[in-house]
Amino acid sequence: MVVILKDGADSKKVKNLTDWLENQKISVHKVIGEYQTILGLIGDTSKIDIDLIQGLDIVEKVKRISEPYKNANRKFHPDDTIIDVGGHKIGGGNFQYFAGPCSVESREQIISIAKDVKKAGANILRGGAFKPRTSPYAFQGMRAEGLELLLEAKKETGMPIVTEIMDASHLDLFENVDIIQVGARNMQNFELLKELGRIDKPIFLKRGLCATLQEFLMSAEYIMAEGNQKVILCERGIRTFETATRNTLDLSAVAMLHEMTHLPVVVDPSHASGIARLVKPMSFAAAACGADGLMIEVHNDPAKALCDGPQALRPEEFAEVTRGVNAIRETVNNL
Amino acid sequence: MVVILKDGADSKKVKNLTDWLENQKISVHKVIGEYQTILGLIGDTSKIDIDLIQGLDIVEKVKRISEPYKNANRKFHPDDTIIDVGGHKIGGGNFQYFAGPCSVESREQIISIAKDVKKAGANILRGGAFKPRTSPYAFQGMRAEGLELLLEAKKETGMPIVTEIMDASHLDLFENVDIIQVGARNMQNFELLKELGRIDKPIFLKRGLCATLQEFLMSAEYIMAEGNQKVILCERGIRTFETATRNTLDLSAVAMLHEMTHLPVVVDPSHASGIARLVKPMSFAAAACGADGLMIEVHNDPAKALCDGPQALRPEEFAEVTRGVNAIRETVNNL
Amino acid sequence: MVVILKDGADSKKVKNLTDWLENQKISVHKVIGEYQTILGLIGDTSKIDIDLIQGLDIVEKVKRISEPYKNANRKFHPDDTIIDVGGHKIGGGNFQYFAGPCSVESREQIISIAKDVKKAGANILRGGAFKPRTSPYAFQGMRAEGLELLLEAKKETGMPIVTEIMDASHLDLFENVDIIQVGARNMQNFELLKELGRIDKPIFLKRGLCATLQEFLMSAEYIMAEGNQKVILCERGIRTFETATRNTLDLSAVAMLHEMTHLPVVVDPSHASGIARLVKPMSFAAAACGADGLMIEVHNDPAKALCDGPQALRPEEFAEVTRGVNAIRETVNNL
Amino acid sequence: MVVILKDGADSKKVKNLTDWLENQKISVHKVIGEYQTILGLIGDTSKIDIDLIQGLDIVEKVKRISEPYKNANRKFHPDDTIIDVGGHKIGGGNFQYFAGPCSVESREQIISIAKDVKKAGANILRGGAFKPRTSPYAFQGMRAEGLELLLEAKKETGMPIVTEIMDASHLDLFENVDIIQVGARNMQNFELLKELGRIDKPIFLKRGLCATLQEFLMSAEYIMAEGNQKVILCERGIRTFETATRNTLDLSAVAMLHEMTHLPVVVDPSHASGIARLVKPMSFAAAACGADGLMIEVHNDPAKALCDGPQALRPEEFAEVTRGVNAIRETVNNL
Repeated sequence: MVVILKDGADSKKVKNLTDWLENQKISVHKVIGEYQTILGLIGDTSKIDIDLIQGLDIVEKVKRISEPYKNANRKFHPDDTIIDVGGHKIGGGNFQYFAGPCSVESREQIISIAKDVKKAGANILRGGAFKPRTSPYAFQGMRAEGLELLLEAKKETGMPIVTEIMDASHLDLFENVDIIQVGARNMQNFELLKELGRIDKPIFLKRGLCATLQEFLMSAEYIMAEGNQKVILCERGIRTFETATRNTLDLSAVAMLHEMTHLPVVVDPSHASGIARLVKPMSFAAAACGADGLMIEVHNDPAKALCDGPQALRPEEFAEVTRGVNAIRETVNNL
Repeated sequence: MVVILKDGADSKKVKNLTDWLENQKISVHKVIGEYQTILGLIGDTSKIDIDLIQGLDIVEKVKRISEPYKNANRKFHPDDTIIDVGGHKIGGGNFQYFAGPCSVESREQIISIAKDVKKAGANILRGGAFKPRTSPYAFQGMRAEGLELLLEAKKETGMPIVTEIMDASHLDLFENVDIIQVGARNMQNFELLKELGRIDKPIFLKRGLCATLQEFLMSAEYIMAEGNQKVILCERGIRTFETATRNTLDLSAVAMLHEMTHLPVVVDPSHASGIARLVKPMSFAAAACGADGLMIEVHNDPAKALCDGPQALRPEEFAEVTRGVNAIRETVNNL
Repeated sequence: MVVILKDGADSKKVKNLTDWLENQKISVHKVIGEYQTILGLIGDTSKIDIDLIQGLDIVEKVKRISEPYKNANRKFHPDDTIIDVGGHKIGGGNFQYFAGPCSVESREQIISIAKDVKKAGANILRGGAFKPRTSPYAFQGMRAEGLELLLEAKKETGMPIVTEIMDASHLDLFENVDIIQVGARNMQNFELLKELGRIDKPIFLKRGLCATLQEFLMSAEYIMAEGNQKVILCERGIRTFETATRNTLDLSAVAMLHEMTHLPVVVDPSHASGIARLVKPMSFAAAACGADGLMIEVHNDPAKALCDGPQALRPEEFAEVTRGVNAIRETVNNL
Repeated sequence: MVVILKDGADSKKVKNLTDWLENQKISVHKVIGEYQTILGLIGDTSKIDIDLIQGLDIVEKVKRISEPYKNANRKFHPDDTIIDVGGHKIGGGNFQYFAGPCSVESREQIISIAKDVKKAGANILRGGAFKPRTSPYAFQGMRAEGLELLLEAKKETGMPIVTEIMDASHLDLFENVDIIQVGARNMQNFELLKELGRIDKPIFLKRGLCATLQEFLMSAEYIMAEGNQKVILCERGIRTFETATRNTLDLSAVAMLHEMTHLPVVVDPSHASGIARLVKPMSFAAAACGADGLMIEVHNDPAKALCDGPQALRPEEFAEVTRGVNAIRETVNNL
């Protein structure tokens, strides 16, 4: 951390700041220039509240140089985290498909799609029971009943399931869910993140629509700071000025996150563009740049899907994606 | 709503769509062109799920022409909503200051600031007890204890209070809070919004960092659809590429929202820029373009504030703001 | 400037860098920490090419602390720049209206509007002859002929004129133009900026749609570095995700720019929102937060304007704006 | 195009509008609803000026349904455009590498890098002579002298060259240049685009930092409307709120553009992220999702590059990229 002092900063106050920092085991190095004095802070600054320093009247600016996250930071955990879900591994070179419908709609629908996606190569079944929708008048998901149906599909097919939680008070219902998803809109629902940090289950954390990568990792850190180290990150498109696609899939985030953190990074091309035709090329791209998995919406009748139909693939289209992605991964791994 | 059909769309399927719409009391007008066929839908389309239609394989594009919100829509409620908080009115020409510290830090602090801001012209006391912070290592607020202190300050000064809720499970603690705030990060925490729609208290809803005005109003609609019509909207800066200010205060939103909705619109210049020096000019600007109120952070010792110090005003600076804002409002009202 | 060295950076290379910097009269202070070594550079770093240092293999990151602009920097020129245009001053407390049609359409039109806006309080006539349009099929302006008509309107009314240049090769045509405008799309047309830096005429520089304030000032610096110090900055809305308004007017930029630079700052509320109804409230807001002028589109028949009709005011509406703005400025000045 | 009329629009004015449209061979279909009347315009609306209609006082909103570009539109030119540069084809399944240094620095440098990149598989040499830099104090390129050196490298290696033009007045110098590049900052320098539309040479058009795909194609249309149909589009990253990468590479744009237009689409991963380590994974991703080429910065001594060093690859790293990209393309083509 670098603190730039104001011109003519009161030396007693500077001493107070220095003492306070040194009490926190930060060593302070002073660089005095003609126009500016700079304090270089050396040590573990990840737990220093930057706003406290910024607020001092002797301070012009504060810049962080080290990252404010620790558990999620690759610097301190150089090895890839590998998460095991019912024997299926994610991360550290292990790739998984998370596939299924946007919403659970009926027993027949979810079981039939589960079988289809399993046949096409998916090991983990996705399906929404609680659905965050922009409009209160849109279909809100089958909720508890939808969760029941997902669990039936799990029993029927042996596939672990991932589904979204929208409120910590629903946690009891998720007892038999294998991976709990936190949606983009709840990425900074900090009370929820803390609760999820206290359980022992993988958390599938989606990047918020306007979250920087650092904020994304800080949300992972909320979970990890409470104890739960099993976090899967998911890039699902960010909001930009572009309107031709619903969001802008940020694939550089995959490569950057692999530098910044040891956690696995999954890409969701279905939500990112909102256009089914783009799912195949974007899945190929995600695999080529090193994603650890893909979350893809598949529906046996996309035109009748109760939610997000335009972005869902039919099972045979999904099979084309897995075939291509597997081939690309093999090619890249053999380079 | 306008539905653009694909070239050569199957006529039986088009008939199915038309029948389905007409069953929902929407009248459908077909315009056949050389390259394109368009369906014009007339009637109350606010409750039609646009994704369902978009998902049909006969459909190229769907465009909404009417707004998807109804309770919040000025078209259906031309008169300004006026909200009364302990005798202090907001909206319809009534202006209020919501002032106080970012965080409650102690009994002395909150009561002393409350008295100061009251003297300077504020009628409503703000203060954070539950604090959403990007980092799990930053000060998280005094939580339940902070709420108690706020209620003491209310008793001591007679000022109604506004404070943020972070989870529906805390609602019991808010029984004596006058206005419940929903923070920008929870603007699309739909479970929370629904809960707040079932109580009888004004809700102070902050715009999300990357929420469009339509999404903002859809979140208000979530509350209103459950019954609670007392929603105060707050513009607090959006996220853009600019880095000189923390966020970009969108003052056009004040004027646009006054066209789109009948709900009162308050501006928070403190969070928008994150820079105390900008609070005065931005408060003046907000008042000049018709805001119904200002939420401003005031601290008796900003340099020692436990949170967001750099953006807080001292009481005497706040008094300068109210003096100027009152003068500008009088000038504008007399034009 | 702060240079963060890579772990284990070769000490000979570090010495080379240090020597090279010291040769440029920069003093280098080394801070050695457990995990990181930092070089603090003190002196005039505005002319150091940051990319050169960033490119070294011993360097992890470089952060600027001082601003990379010098001529435009208020730190080195504390007094407001005041620009005189035909006896009308801008900046340093002097406020001007730049008003007129988006495009010059005919002799009658431009002279009639010139008289109208003059009567309503404008001292400077704006009007587009060369028009940058997104579509090649849209009206491109009357070009040279339009410039002639503007000059006639100048003769007729005595008003100085401001109009946009689109290419340095047209400069001869602008000999009798009083202020030359650089449009948002050309803000980083550096060849044009350099040419304009070599003439002795005020330049009206519009902020690019996605330009940061620092980039905006760097473009002003391009002009000033060539000699021409008469630059008027104009905030005209930036591009964000919001779609209810065409662009997002960034009024915090007015207050921030007044800190960063001594140059006058004008606001163009017409282009920012693209909606005539928003011009009045946004003009009031701009005046309240300290703008040095307003550029406003006025048309005697907005519904028939050949370009940007939806955002133009009628003369009587413009008169309402000037009346209100004058009153607000008087109020603010008397606080 | 759909025109939504205002409630109670004067019927005579509506008739005027209808007549005016029908004179332009647009057929107008009126849909009258309870709250709204809509005009559906059928025909070639690409040359209708949307602003003219928007400006009418009887009009509430206008929405385009067809694209406003014609020459660039795949609907009217279903076959891929293939551009031949000295026997090297781009588009329609033909892939090219455009490689070389950011800036030409010396005869030795450019010839040596040219040979290196040719050996690694590049057919087209890139190199900047005229350099658009944010700061007037940064290296501006060797300009005319740099062009001479590029032409020498062309003679020496037989590679066609691509280099950036910054002003139409320099066009004479580009006579022997094979492909003329228009940089992101000049994407809407319409005077330049028109000039380039009148010559017979491929134009390499980079997407502006905040340009939508539609605006990007409108800029291509500027060139094509003047006659020159040889336009190569280049996605090079857009500006978002994210700061970990310099820009956000929008790879969905590749897939979307292939739907919208028949022009070839090249990706520049070097400028997009500004980080050399990201060039390989992003090149792989671009190839996997169907890019028609890659523009990559290569330098024999990136740490000493006079411009943009941090994003340049060394020749041996570039060879790794071409090896991987070729393998991925083969895999994808054989699916």
